[in-house]
Amino acid sequence: MARPKPISGFPEFLPAGRIAEQYVLDILRETFELHGYAPIETRAVETMEQLTRKGEITKEVYVVRRLHADDAASEKSDDLGLHFDLTVPFARYVLENAGHLAFPFRRYQIQHVWRGERPQEGRYREFCQADIDIVGQDTLAEHFDVEAPIVMLAALERMHAELGLPQALMHVNNRKLAEGFYRGLGIEDTLEVLQRVDKFDKIGGDAVVELLTGELGLAEDVARKCVALAGICTPDDGFVDQVRALGVEHPMLEEGLESLRAVVLAANRRVPGRIVADLKIARGLDYYTGTVYETELVGHEKLGSISSGGRYDSLASDGKITFPGVGISLGVTRLLGPLITKGQLTANRSVPSAVLVAVDDEATRQVAEEVAAALRERRIPCEVAPRADKFGKQIKHADRRGIPFVWFGGMSGQVKDIRSGDQVDADASSWEPPREDLRPGVSFQG
Amino acid sequence: MARPKPISGFPEFLPAGRIAEQYVLDILRETFELHGYAPIETRAVETMEQLTRKGEITKEVYVVRRLHADDAASEKSDDLGLHFDLTVPFARYVLENAGHLAFPFRRYQIQHVWRGERPQEGRYREFCQADIDIVGQDTLAEHFDVEAPIVMLAALERMHAELGLPQALMHVNNRKLAEGFYRGLGIEDTLEVLQRVDKFDKIGGDAVVELLTGELGLAEDVARKCVALAGICTPDDGFVDQVRALGVEHPMLEEGLESLRAVVLAANRRVPGRIVADLKIARGLDYYTGTVYETELVGHEKLGSISSGGRYDSLASDGKITFPGVGISLGVTRLLGPLITKGQLTANRSVPSAVLVAVDDEATRQVAEEVAAALRERRIPCEVAPRADKFGKQIKHADRRGIPFVWFGGMSGQVKDIRSGDQVDADASSWEPPREDLRPGVSFQG
Repeated sequence: MARPKPISGFPEFLPAGRIAEQYVLDILRETFELHGYAPIETRAVETMEQLTRKGEITKEVYVVRRLHADDAASEKSDDLGLHFDLTVPFARYVLENAGHLAFPFRRYQIQHVWRGERPQEGRYREFCQADIDIVGQDTLAEHFDVEAPIVMLAALERMHAELGLPQALMHVNNRKLAEGFYRGLGIEDTLEVLQRVDKFDKIGGDAVVELLTGELGLAEDVARKCVALAGICTPDDGFVDQVRALGVEHPMLEEGLESLRAVVLAANRRVPGRIVADLKIARGLDYYTGTVYETELVGHEKLGSISSGGRYDSLASDGKITFPGVGISLGVTRLLGPLITKGQLTANRSVPSAVLVAVDDEATRQVAEEVAAALRERRIPCEVAPRADKFGKQIKHADRRGIPFVWFGGMSGQVKDIRSGDQVDADASSWEPPREDLRPGVSFQG
Repeated sequence: MARPKPISGFPEFLPAGRIAEQYVLDILRETFELHGYAPIETRAVETMEQLTRKGEITKEVYVVRRLHADDAASEKSDDLGLHFDLTVPFARYVLENAGHLAFPFRRYQIQHVWRGERPQEGRYREFCQADIDIVGQDTLAEHFDVEAPIVMLAALERMHAELGLPQALMHVNNRKLAEGFYRGLGIEDTLEVLQRVDKFDKIGGDAVVELLTGELGLAEDVARKCVALAGICTPDDGFVDQVRALGVEHPMLEEGLESLRAVVLAANRRVPGRIVADLKIARGLDYYTGTVYETELVGHEKLGSISSGGRYDSLASDGKITFPGVGISLGVTRLLGPLITKGQLTANRSVPSAVLVAVDDEATRQVAEEVAAALRERRIPCEVAPRADKFGKQIKHADRRGIPFVWFGGMSGQVKDIRSGDQVDADASSWEPPREDLRPGVSFQG
């Protein structure tokens, strides 16, 4: 077989890259669990009916069919597709299992999703997402709008502190704020305005004014106020006065201001300097109804939002009971994929082993195996050399994989730190590597 | 939306079930890493060309296509399918990345696979597998045939010791042994014989003799010797003498006997009583060329083999370089799915939280948040009560989720073990739950 080539949009990593990715996934999992989020995993497929309930995404779905489906017609109604996010499956899971879940229900979900996008730079067709959501039955208190971003920021802050990844800055807004503001200006089709204001970052304020006056026929002063609102961005609750200064009034606007103020103040108490009120954030096509979140990496804004979400008044509903939710999704592959592929984020070894146990002679391989078993007993990852080569060659085997220590002799033997060359007597039933060498180290070199 | 129904063959678990599954996945991962196996993950899809190289499996493949593929004809050649095991993707990964891997290369891979089977009892269409393989370049020493089963048995032994799952018993054979034996009897088409002898367990020895004499035209005494060989099963190297007593000779038989003896003796030294030489094990349709493994749970033999594998002389080849491999796969969902679904394997709580921090009053929610932050600082999973209800109701909230402790008051507060009712003064900056309560406990009740 000829050497296979990668498939565009389906990223894969070498072992050191996967170790780096797992390190990040472990941070996410641990952070979510420390905050009481329960793990769930949903199947990779949903019915096409579920997947196509939102019109816009239809074209990106991967349909899944058995190669030898007996009868094309009879299977059509059961057609399955790969999920393109973790929100649609979660909403379905909540409805399906509502009787067995305790609400409010916090869950995290770290899984791959698939989108049949045209392959292009930076677009993935298979990628990993990490989602947290809190879902209530009938009602869901506003303090969960504060909790969700704090949990995700706590995970991002650990990535910054432990791996050296850039700092995150979360931009928060509230849909009610803009909608109430537009209504206060007498605008009826607020979604049309929102979708144009959403282009603020790409085309600038003047161009948005042109769209609003040209395409929607708004008066210029009204359009300018919409753009002025979108231009407000404060690290604290200063946005409230700036909005009031625009002289627009509406009960929904007040509701949005209060809600956003609570989120920004509480989040700043818990993770100072990592959240701003940014009134241009709209999350255009998504069905959020309250708080919305986007997250940039400081200094890497052109990556776009790496973590987004918001509140749905109705994440799911069976017609009788409504399940409101608030959640945030982190694009794990979107964030890490380019860094791992370029080698900027990697592990300092390609295997978990902290120790290579050298083999003197094939006849005494068992001695090396006993040393390895003793180390593993105390949770020290290790491997036994594949061949009783000359020691120099065995050390090279360790070096090539980044394994820091080589063990010589039996249970009472010697251990060499091959980085420094130091070699000391050691007993396999008590010796331990320095804590930082126990697991592969992972770091970002920007 | 009406309440959705499960899709047959695509299992999903409630949170307590998923916690149990993750506990097992953590045991697997830790065991594999302690033995130096590097993590890799391959994309979910392979080209149809890769997937259909082995004829028999073709009908089980799920084909994946974009819903709105622009031109059916032009995309045909790029058709993708979901992988149905982790061996085909791993072989492709090795060829694709050979220049960047260090051989012998140990890897583990824990991922979902998909098979478009007709849905029926105990058949999954999406399920999780955990594979370990060691692959060499050109050659791969025989001691890896000993290592692979020991690693998998170490993981299974931890599941037995920590969770109370039934003990595993691995059955080992060597393809060369049977093939050499058949050749020694003058049989040429040894695969035909092997495939019939593989039915030994299902139909019994006499019926196999009938197949061999009837369908293949073997002489009765020859057929009886083939069946006699298949009947040999010893917990040590006693099988060698039993085979010799059948009076058949062939160099390949000798090779097989020696190799199997080495595996059984070494494995019994490391994990006594967990491995037997069982000369009827054939792994019928798979392309193994040496050692083969199957694993039963003692007392649950009718589950079939939960963990199987073997040696390939050519796991992959690019025409110039050949990559021999040996590996074992554990059917995680096959093993756990029925136990979790029936509630036999479950966690003692449905959330990671060890502590629920009660809220006195919505106005002082921040105090509870500070307590929770202090506990999390010391890696104690906790959650804050969703509402400042009466304490009885907040305790009920904890009880319903299996959370063992409820915290009252601020940093200097009180903590109640709601199982015993004991309530003591505690400081959030130093209090710790008993070690066994830190994470959800998982156990099997058979």
